[in-house]
Amino acid sequence: MTSTNKKSVLVIGGGAVGAIAALNLDLGGLAVVTLVLRSNYEAVNKSGYDFESCDHGTVNAWKPSVVRNTIPNITRESLPPYDYVLLATKNIPDIPPTVVDLIAPALPKNNTHTTLVLLQNGLNIEKPFLTSHPDTPVLSGVSLIGSAEISPGQIIHDEPDKLFIGAFPHPSIPSTTLSALAQNFVAIYSAAHKTQCTHSPNVLHDRWKKLVYNACLNPICALTGLDTGRIRLADGALEALVKPAMREIVEAAKVCAGVELEQGIVQWTIDMDPLESYLKPSMQQDLEKGNFIEFENLLGEPLREGRRAGVSMPTLEVLYGLARAVQWRSKEARGVVGVPRRQ
Amino acid sequence: MTSTNKKSVLVIGGGAVGAIAALNLDLGGLAVVTLVLRSNYEAVNKSGYDFESCDHGTVNAWKPSVVRNTIPNITRESLPPYDYVLLATKNIPDIPPTVVDLIAPALPKNNTHTTLVLLQNGLNIEKPFLTSHPDTPVLSGVSLIGSAEISPGQIIHDEPDKLFIGAFPHPSIPSTTLSALAQNFVAIYSAAHKTQCTHSPNVLHDRWKKLVYNACLNPICALTGLDTGRIRLADGALEALVKPAMREIVEAAKVCAGVELEQGIVQWTIDMDPLESYLKPSMQQDLEKGNFIEFENLLGEPLREGRRAGVSMPTLEVLYGLARAVQWRSKEARGVVGVPRRQ
Repeated sequence: MTSTNKKSVLVIGGGAVGAIAALNLDLGGLAVVTLVLRSNYEAVNKSGYDFESCDHGTVNAWKPSVVRNTIPNITRESLPPYDYVLLATKNIPDIPPTVVDLIAPALPKNNTHTTLVLLQNGLNIEKPFLTSHPDTPVLSGVSLIGSAEISPGQIIHDEPDKLFIGAFPHPSIPSTTLSALAQNFVAIYSAAHKTQCTHSPNVLHDRWKKLVYNACLNPICALTGLDTGRIRLADGALEALVKPAMREIVEAAKVCAGVELEQGIVQWTIDMDPLESYLKPSMQQDLEKGNFIEFENLLGEPLREGRRAGVSMPTLEVLYGLARAVQWRSKEARGVVGVPRRQ
Repeated sequence: MTSTNKKSVLVIGGGAVGAIAALNLDLGGLAVVTLVLRSNYEAVNKSGYDFESCDHGTVNAWKPSVVRNTIPNITRESLPPYDYVLLATKNIPDIPPTVVDLIAPALPKNNTHTTLVLLQNGLNIEKPFLTSHPDTPVLSGVSLIGSAEISPGQIIHDEPDKLFIGAFPHPSIPSTTLSALAQNFVAIYSAAHKTQCTHSPNVLHDRWKKLVYNACLNPICALTGLDTGRIRLADGALEALVKPAMREIVEAAKVCAGVELEQGIVQWTIDMDPLESYLKPSMQQDLEKGNFIEFENLLGEPLREGRRAGVSMPTLEVLYGLARAVQWRSKEARGVVGVPRRQ
């Protein structure tokens, strides 16, 4: 295959998840990858990434075809539109800029050429794009990867990259078109033969299933400061917090989306992280680093869906209220909100 | 009045609350005060306390009649029994030793002479003593003081000492006897004419009323890291967390104890701390210092009372589960519990 047959992929966000995606797409040989970085741009642009990867082995000083620290402005820079734009940043709609504003320079409002791939967690993340870019197909990427960037450009990847790709339902693009785009992306992503990338058309199933972990263990671990191993050891935490929260998600999935999650999904999700690995969910890591947390898409959206459908979600209600208050604390710490002077 | 008419009072715990009580009893002239200290013993024994007090002004290098770093063993030391034992320590029944074990040397099991005064927050705190010391009268002290020990022996007292004293109902001691003991203690405590100490026979009313603050703002502020001013400013925290939790306490007070709290108690409690003072409830202070938190008597007991009576308390259920998990984290940090080695 010649390079003219390659697809152009713009990967936005090169942290622990985006970097592995970019590497894997590059190694497969069917994509020309442009990678947009922010905090680790200097380090990666100078020396490339170093990976210790369960899927790819040791890879040193790797760079994609193009590394940038700005979103390409395809009109101003006279660039051809990308075939795929893969969004692998955090998604924090309560803190500007929104992801829609972020990608705007690379994706004209009337775009029909580019397919957007959202490699992000949570519910209803496609909704803003269906409004802002009504003719753009949007794919869902649900990733079960375990990886961390231990310092800028240094990636430790210790749980295999399992990626489920499917198209979000679209009001005007035929499902056969969407399905073909999803399968094409799966082919590109699978070409390196190192990872498991699957076409999984039931996007809502995959997203609600992952919420059993993300809407529950993420905020509970963040608020208590206990990782997913310790929360299983702590006095009564599973029965009082984790299981009730997870059961609320299982019920909401059924009522809101007609998604019947597997029998035993609650215990399966609790046991997913090995106890003695003491893994911290992303929200706990973010809070410890003083970063904003992704609580709106992971917790707020399933809660609002559940409320609208009349599902009782008392545990998630309180977790959401607490997460929102914690986010406000971070906003104050960063000067986004202020308080009256002490008397 | 000669010194032989004075009452002997053993004050256990000389932190921000106990020290003011000891000072006030001493200044009144009707009590001979023995004060038991732990962490600040060295400092106070050497140089006494320094107070900046809204009730007592500036008081330097003050010591009571006796300062000790052990609970008096009245049998072994051949001491006469105290007239009053005032317990002003934290009360953390989930962490040994229990307060019953703590005071045992100063209070024989068959005691009838000494009156126990529990200057501690929360519900059902008298229950262990009614079992362990069935012939000992037990008084309730509900304090609305604002004071802090900024360094060992240095007390800043900025909200007046308002103390409500009443007898806990007792299965075998007549209520007239209990009432007389309570009034006697009020007289001794009021003799300095500096503070407001009131005989308030409806102990359950006073305790549930204080729980509207303590069961709700204490854990919410501790878990979010927001003080009682900021929690009023943070996005939606009052409506999502504080008010629902407080309404659950108001309902439990009515159903469990027949206590009809005042109309408007929820807003009154929210407004109690001046917003722009940014006060941290004790549980938040304790968590920030790495101390154990008093969540069982403040939150666990009202929750269990409510559960038994069939009151719906979904907010307090989650706050309790989170507080218990946070306490477990402190237990691990102090080596009280361990976890299997990381794999």
